[in-house]
Formats: sequence, structure tokens, C-alpha cells
Amino acid sequence: MRIGKFVSLIEEKGFDGALISPSTNFYYLTGLNLHEVGERLTVLAVNANGDYHLLAPSLYENVIQGFPTTFWRDGENAYEKLSWILADLKLSSGRILIEDTMRADWLIGIMRLGNNSFEFHPLSLVMRELRMIKDSQEIEMMKHAAKVVDRVFEEVLSWDILGMREKELALKIELKIRELSDGISFEPIVASGENAANPHHAPGERRIRKGDMVILDYGAKVGGYCSDITRTIAVGQPNEKLIGIYNVVKEAQENAYRAVREGIKAKEVDRVARETIAKAGYGEYFTHRTGHGLGLDVHEEPYIGPDGEVVLKNGMTFTIEPGIYVPGLGGVRIEDDVAVIDGRGTRLTKAERELVVL
Amino acid sequence: MRIGKFVSLIEEKGFDGALISPSTNFYYLTGLNLHEVGERLTVLAVNANGDYHLLAPSLYENVIQGFPTTFWRDGENAYEKLSWILADLKLSSGRILIEDTMRADWLIGIMRLGNNSFEFHPLSLVMRELRMIKDSQEIEMMKHAAKVVDRVFEEVLSWDILGMREKELALKIELKIRELSDGISFEPIVASGENAANPHHAPGERRIRKGDMVILDYGAKVGGYCSDITRTIAVGQPNEKLIGIYNVVKEAQENAYRAVREGIKAKEVDRVARETIAKAGYGEYFTHRTGHGLGLDVHEEPYIGPDGEVVLKNGMTFTIEPGIYVPGLGGVRIEDDVAVIDGRGTRLTKAERELVVL
Repeated sequence: MRIGKFVSLIEEKGFDGALISPSTNFYYLTGLNLHEVGERLTVLAVNANGDYHLLAPSLYENVIQGFPTTFWRDGENAYEKLSWILADLKLSSGRILIEDTMRADWLIGIMRLGNNSFEFHPLSLVMRELRMIKDSQEIEMMKHAAKVVDRVFEEVLSWDILGMREKELALKIELKIRELSDGISFEPIVASGENAANPHHAPGERRIRKGDMVILDYGAKVGGYCSDITRTIAVGQPNEKLIGIYNVVKEAQENAYRAVREGIKAKEVDRVARETIAKAGYGEYFTHRTGHGLGLDVHEEPYIGPDGEVVLKNGMTFTIEPGIYVPGLGGVRIEDDVAVIDGRGTRLTKAERELVVL
Repeated sequence: MRIGKFVSLIEEKGFDGALISPSTNFYYLTGLNLHEVGERLTVLAVNANGDYHLLAPSLYENVIQGFPTTFWRDGENAYEKLSWILADLKLSSGRILIEDTMRADWLIGIMRLGNNSFEFHPLSLVMRELRMIKDSQEIEMMKHAAKVVDRVFEEVLSWDILGMREKELALKIELKIRELSDGISFEPIVASGENAANPHHAPGERRIRKGDMVILDYGAKVGGYCSDITRTIAVGQPNEKLIGIYNVVKEAQENAYRAVREGIKAKEVDRVARETIAKAGYGEYFTHRTGHGLGLDVHEEPYIGPDGEVVLKNGMTFTIEPGIYVPGLGGVRIEDDVAVIDGRGTRLTKAERELVVL
């Protein structure tokens, strides 16, 4: 458990405690993996003295063992039980960190317990300092997750995808990931032809046709850690304009990757990608940030965008994924997972980046 | 769009407005289905005069059309843009409804915009009145979703599951659901032998053996609406005690189902199931509520538990799913989806409830 390190950090930063609902932060700190908690109040309370106690629904009595826990049953008042825990830990008021993804109705219930005498701050303020720097065990897990998506890309290239519906291809990719890992890190995106102009397209009924560029964006989880890769492939000879766009994106991705080094700000990496694309005349079609941190969450700090003030350090892991999206025509995105190791960027995903024409 | 009806309700109840993040409530009101918004601020603001405006990330520019929307790009200050919208709608203070599942960090950001002059209440307070009563179109969708899970159960009975791992069977069930519907409403549960003593067991590596009772709990989505069924089957002749338990659960489920009628409180239905199980001497092993509302969410109002004060009305839809879980031995749960129609309960799921021995 990493609670000790976490407690020193909250004390150092002048917080009185933290209330943490099931999430990747919860898992990072406790090692407990609680599934499907849903709407039933489940909160870990930690104070700056290092005392902690968990409130959980009685459904988990068989699952949570050897951890200081109060269980509540359906029909009991869970918030009352939480208020006793808060009183015990001297957390009935003060500057409290709240898990970012906690449900708002839980937070409203907690507000009421404190008669609005709490001052809330997002937990990520503190956790990101711990979680942004991966130790060697975490990097190993991420390398493994990256190898899985590389292997899936090789598989995809061996499939006959012409005429396949986007949904079918997305399902085939998902099943291959699930076969090789603990599961998908998000629903695979397959965006073909003009659909590729939407960076977050949901795979649909469109069949893959000759001349399409197809964006494939998918990820795997290993030991809780995520990978996330995007490749754009061509089915039959695509039009010249799209080939030009592909080369611009590939150059932007390579330049941004080469710019990674310890000590620079995340926004410097974003700037390099953005400038490469702007110079080629496509600036307005690159509508998202260059990348995002990757770890237990598929989106976490450090974000690689125009406002990325985080200074890169060894052990940080993030994606580099510039893209160009032209409505009516299509789109291209190329994404790798990158770790800062020995002061420089190292790609974790290594699948072919040259344009593959099937 | 159902915003008109919603606005009269918030005005009637004395709220100044509502802030709604992507969720089933958001979909119910707007018809917009925003996937994978993640950490990017996305909020629909509605005031009691019926004015409304959406803030969304620019990623959705191609998806959201014909809806009053302000887009923000990565790198811009999304909360500042939200504060302009709130000022326009005269929502910079007051009694505000907040989507229950909104991320806590968004709510903390909103608190700050209002200098803590807001009074927050969970949106479900108002929405549940709208959403609890399904119209005939919604019931049709739910019947369809229920038919899918019935059909999947017939399929399962035709499979050779002896020796199969729980995970494998869960995946086969998932794929069959996805083939027949818009998708799963939650990750299927397959809990075999002693694992069935944990009501929320995550399917694992255990292979199904002769003499096992196996709990299968899964659901489908059709047009956004959920089904949710549980059947417990035997593989080879199970031990006598488990057969006795099966019959108690079946009787409790039948009694609770027959108790359903317009005008009684939800907790009356729970009481009937609980009493049947207690009389048979298993009271302490029925550790959860008898059921939950079902609709766009797989868990919603009305909850059928000891604290269920909701008065049942025509158009309400919920599960009835008593269970008995004996640590070290195993467990049994039987669950149907039920609608209140013409004053009485009608089962939507109709799969075999007698003990099937494979």
C-alpha cells in the first residue's frame, strides 16, 4: 500500500484529509479492485495523521478483507455511518481532497454532513505527483500492454478488412485484445473514409471501401496499466491529398517525439507537433491536444497540450498523437505511447508507422 | 426533447436551474448521445424559464448539431466559458440541481464559479419523477431488451458448459447479447460453485464442475433501455441443501412478484421476499435489496428495498431478484424484470424459472 507516501504529501501540502471513492487512485493506494459499486456509497477516508478507514456496502464483505472497513446494508443510512467515521478521524471540517471522479451526489451528501464547513479540492492535485512518475514495475506493465497492441496491429494487417463493417472490425480488435491481455482500456475506434474526420467516431455500419483511409485507435490493459495506439491504414490506393496529410501527421508525430526530454514543459512537445502541422497549412484541422498521460487511467497527467505546464521528468508516460481531420474528406492520426527514460523519449509502442496500403 | 416537461417540474419545485453532465438524464432530455467525454468539461445548463445552453469540447463540433452550444478547445479555460453561460442564464447563484453522476472535480469547479453561493441538490430528485414512469414506447424497448436475454438463456442451455472457465462463459454470453442487441447493459456475472456465495463475483479462471450451481446475471440494451436477468442453473445433480435453497429463492421471487400492485410502497415488495426467506431460516444470507428500478440505467428508481418509500404506479419497471448466499457453499439468485401494467406486475423476462439441471 502506498498510503504512507500519500499521507506525507497531503500533510506537506496543508490538507486535513482525503475522501476517495473507488477509482484508479483508490486502487493505486489500497490495491483493492472494487467493481461495479455503482450508486452505493463507498468512501475511503484518510487523515493527515495517517489514520484511514473505509465505508463500503455489505455486498463486499467477502471481497474486502484485512482492511479497516465499516460495512452498511441496503436500507441503512450510509451517510450517517460515514459521519461517524469522519468524526473518529477528526475530518468533520477542513481542507479535504476529493477523488475527482466521485459521483456528485455523494459529494453533495458529504457537503451536508459538514454543514458546508468543508473546503474541497480535487484529489488529483496531490495524486498526480505520485502517479505521474512510474516506477520500473509500472513501466514493465506498460511495456507489456504496449506489446499487446503492437501485436494486435500485426494481426489486423493479416485480416481481410475490405467490405467489413466498422463495428465488426472494432469487435474483432476488441476480442484479440481481450485474448492477449486483461482487457481493453477503452472501446476501440474504427473510423473509415469520411467518418475519420471525426476524432471520436463511434464505429458504425459503414463498410470499409477501396480508397478509404481507416483510423484504428485501441488499447489494452495489463495489471491495471493501459496502452493506447492509433494507426491509420489505407485500403487500396487512397487519394493524393490524404497521402499528403498522412505524411504531415507522421512528421509531426516524429518531431514531437524527438522533442521529448527531461526538463522541458509538456506544452513544448505540443508546440512542435502543432507547428509542423500549421506549416503544412492544416493548423485549423488539428483540433485536439497532442497527447495525454497514460497509466492506470487511459487519460491522466501529464496532458500534452498548449496549456501543458508540467515539466517532463524521467518515469513519465504519455501518448503523442497528432491528427488532421478534414470534414467531408477524412482524417489521419498516428499515436504512440512514450516513456521518458534517461532524459529522452522512448516509444513503448513500436508498430509500423509508414503508411500501410492493404 | 423532454426539456419542456422538465422545466415545469423544476419551476414547480422551486429550483432555479440544473447543470447536467453527459449521462442517461442528459440523453433522456436532449436525445444527444455523447460517448467518452471523460475529463473534458461538458455541461448542459437549464434555467427555470426554459432557457438552456450546452458547453462541450470542440471534439464534438461534428456530432452536436442544431443544439445551442458553446464549444471550447483544449488549452482554453472551459470554466470561464461556463461562467459566461451561467451569467447569461441568470444561474450564477441559487438552488441548482446537479446531475448525480457528474464528476466531483467538475462540481468543485462549479462551486468556485459561484463563490459558494450555490445550494446544490441531486438532479435525480426531479428526474426520477419523469423517468420512473415509462411511456408505451419505453416499455416496448424494454420488452425487446428482455426478449434478448430470454433468448440468450435458451442459447446457454444448448452450450456444453461443463469444464468451461467462468470468464469464457461470460464472454460467450456477452458476444451473444451483442449479436442480438445494441450491447450489454453491464458485464455479465458468471459465479460457479462456492464463488456464487459472492453476489457481485467477477468471472474468473474457475472451471465449471459437476455438482455446481452457477449464477448467470446479464443484461442487454435496446435503444438505450436495459434488461437484467439472473438464472441459477445446476450442472449435474447439486447437493440437497442447494436444491432446498433454490426452492426458497424461487418462492420468495414468486411471492414478491405477486405482491406487486399499484398503490403499495416498494418496501412492501421487499418485505414479502425477505419474509419468505427468513421463514425458511436463511434471513441472514439475503444480504441485498430485493430489486432496483430499470430503464435507461441498469440501476435507477424505484429501489425495492427495506427503505423503499416510493409508491408503485403504472409504468414503473424494476427487477425482483432475491438471493441466498452461503459462504463456503454457494448461492442462488433468480431475477426478472417487471413492469406495473393495469395495476399489477407483468414479467418482461420469461425465461424458465424451474431449476434446470444440465
